[in-house]
Amino acid sequence: MKLYDYAAAPSPRRVRIFLAEKGITLPTVQVDLRNGEQFSDSFRAINPDCTVPVLELDDGTCIADAIGICVYFEAVRPDPPLMGSDPEGKAIITAAQRRAERDGFYAVMEALRNFTPGMKGRSLPGPDGYEQIPALAERGRARVLRFFETMEAELAGRDFVCGSDYSIADITTLVTVDFARWIKLAIPEQSLNLRRWYDHVSARPSAKA
Amino acid sequence: MKLYDYAAAPSPRRVRIFLAEKGITLPTVQVDLRNGEQFSDSFRAINPDCTVPVLELDDGTCIADAIGICVYFEAVRPDPPLMGSDPEGKAIITAAQRRAERDGFYAVMEALRNFTPGMKGRSLPGPDGYEQIPALAERGRARVLRFFETMEAELAGRDFVCGSDYSIADITTLVTVDFARWIKLAIPEQSLNLRRWYDHVSARPSAKA
Repeated sequence: MKLYDYAAAPSPRRVRIFLAEKGITLPTVQVDLRNGEQFSDSFRAINPDCTVPVLELDDGTCIADAIGICVYFEAVRPDPPLMGSDPEGKAIITAAQRRAERDGFYAVMEALRNFTPGMKGRSLPGPDGYEQIPALAERGRARVLRFFETMEAELAGRDFVCGSDYSIADITTLVTVDFARWIKLAIPEQSLNLRRWYDHVSARPSAKA
Repeated sequence: MKLYDYAAAPSPRRVRIFLAEKGITLPTVQVDLRNGEQFSDSFRAINPDCTVPVLELDDGTCIADAIGICVYFEAVRPDPPLMGSDPEGKAIITAAQRRAERDGFYAVMEALRNFTPGMKGRSLPGPDGYEQIPALAERGRARVLRFFETMEAELAGRDFVCGSDYSIADITTLVTVDFARWIKLAIPEQSLNLRRWYDHVSARPSAKA
């Protein structure tokens, strides 16, 4: 089993933090996104979507999705649970993770990919060369600021995004906050709940993954 | 327990099909999206994101996400499994469902919301009034056509999206194909695998949900 990864990229970092929290280590293969290795014929044979992370299982099956990979490891190593331990907890964490991804992570990605000169013709990940849409970069920035506001309110009186236990919803939110630096957005000074939470989850050893 | 629903909307239809496959019936409350009831104060108190579906549990907890709701029912009624039955199956189905949602369902939504005159100022679901971006409508249409091509290739020699068993990945793909009619896109005539699959899954009683 091995993980196709790129150390500087936020999407595989979600998986690396998840694995660190589970105490799982895996051999990794670095795919040099900065030099376009994801578009090479050899990597396309592994993942036609040309993205990392990809988990290659021992039978050759490839899981080419960060959350799909986390689902795999949650099933093979349930402790500590990071995706909920009862039906209600699983549902709440799934919904919170998806909201952080949609309103936070993807909004940063929209802002970045539709603005950065080096990403012309790559407004979405993957092999299809969609052109940049400047209005989408602006909308992305506005959405990230709204996401920070939402999380500031949600985290009042809470240790973690879904209550008293650390979960995959914290991982996506943490990676989103760090990813937002790429578009020069940071947690507002006055967002005290979000800042406290960020300092707390960033101090966990897994955050270095 | 009750489900906030709107019969004509594709997102809650995903949950209705899922429940029909599980043999679960629930009381539903129709939220009149056509007349903006999702923005009413009373519905905002249930879901500040102003979207359906929402599952309200007996303790008042609300799960405001289609996949979160499916995760809940997969946990309380595992048979028949619609999200995989072993770690590898769970991972593959999760990844396939997410790809169908990202490349199919959300692409139709982008095309629809950024074009339809009646959706001015509502380029995304939810309470924030993001303006339409015409280039995004065009990109959405191109992505839906690419999604059909991808699925045509994937479904060669397969009964269902993830192999021999019907799953939530089929549900998202089916709802996406029907949703694409709203933007006047249909499965191309020559896409014989996708058409065969579509006829097959549409004939299941759950498709009427």
